[in-house]
Amino acid sequence: MFEIVKPMDIEKRSFEIITELLGGRSFPPEQGPIIKRVIHTTADFDYADNLVFSPGAVEKGLEALKGGCHIVTDTTMAMAGINKTALGRLGGQVHCFIADPDVAEEAKARNVTRSMVSMEKAARLEKPCIFAIGNAPTALMELYELIQAQKVNPVLIIGVPVGFVNVVESKEQIMTAPVPYIVARGRKGGSSVAAAVCNALLYQISR
Amino acid sequence: MFEIVKPMDIEKRSFEIITELLGGRSFPPEQGPIIKRVIHTTADFDYADNLVFSPGAVEKGLEALKGGCHIVTDTTMAMAGINKTALGRLGGQVHCFIADPDVAEEAKARNVTRSMVSMEKAARLEKPCIFAIGNAPTALMELYELIQAQKVNPVLIIGVPVGFVNVVESKEQIMTAPVPYIVARGRKGGSSVAAAVCNALLYQISR
Repeated sequence: MFEIVKPMDIEKRSFEIITELLGGRSFPPEQGPIIKRVIHTTADFDYADNLVFSPGAVEKGLEALKGGCHIVTDTTMAMAGINKTALGRLGGQVHCFIADPDVAEEAKARNVTRSMVSMEKAARLEKPCIFAIGNAPTALMELYELIQAQKVNPVLIIGVPVGFVNVVESKEQIMTAPVPYIVARGRKGGSSVAAAVCNALLYQISR
Repeated sequence: MFEIVKPMDIEKRSFEIITELLGGRSFPPEQGPIIKRVIHTTADFDYADNLVFSPGAVEKGLEALKGGCHIVTDTTMAMAGINKTALGRLGGQVHCFIADPDVAEEAKARNVTRSMVSMEKAARLEKPCIFAIGNAPTALMELYELIQAQKVNPVLIIGVPVGFVNVVESKEQIMTAPVPYIVARGRKGGSSVAAAVCNALLYQISR
């Protein structure tokens, strides 16, 4: 019943199956591994069409990661999913401020979401950062405002929140900001998708 | 462009939209909130058909949670996604042994996956446990063997690994074990789905 049980063999075979199931479809070489890893994470082939990349987004992300850039996430789940060993070897770290008590307090006082305040806090980091947003459209909306106000200049935005309210709009909006992006258009996405995109970038550098 | 930005309002409106999009479709009352929360987490309506429940599975899970049962996950991501405040109020905790150094060592020595060893370690917990498996088919396969050997007796198995190798088979197999289950049939699932099912159970008790 179960022929392969080695994790690396399973992953290799999984990517072969995904490639087969995608038929003859081809992607730009730098985008293919990202699209396939998101499909690997979700078993959802919609991502072959949903994922959109601004020109040079992958290259900019890879270059920044090689230079030790950090990654900011909107959820502890996305943070948990990112391969911190691979990131750490390049000199990077993951930050997520959503569960910080000061963020919760400030959000309550100002009557805004914790996601929004966590983005403001992340904007004060002094390192170059990739922002990977897998859950909260309000995080992506806040990031847009911070970019417009020149309070943050992300290396790359991975904009993949999931859901039914403000999600589609927040993604369309962020694609108009003057920053490189990888976005899952439409309603789909999630913390696991955000982590998968980060890991796909990391694994293009080393594994 | 963005009319609602309060998290609880967004969630409420999201569930209304999901209900609308499901048309007139109705589910058993205890299953509906779980199916809808998984759709909320993934924006993927396939889960309206994929999720299967053994008779009384939800009731058994709810009763155990009210009694302070613990939850075991196969990934730190699923652990991160579970509402530990809600679980803690009932007296429960989440355990995930995948990243434990002793688990990694033993897996290497025995040439098996860390997921398998982490399940063996979890089987030694003395509390009643729900097992929520969102990633590793080998964890679900190992759980099946442990149940057959009467080394573990889960309160409920949430079997939602995702992927292309052994995933479908591991889910079909676990449904033949003499334990209550909630399973996402087919290839789809994931850590976020595992966490969503746990949270949907918790929110049926209190929020």
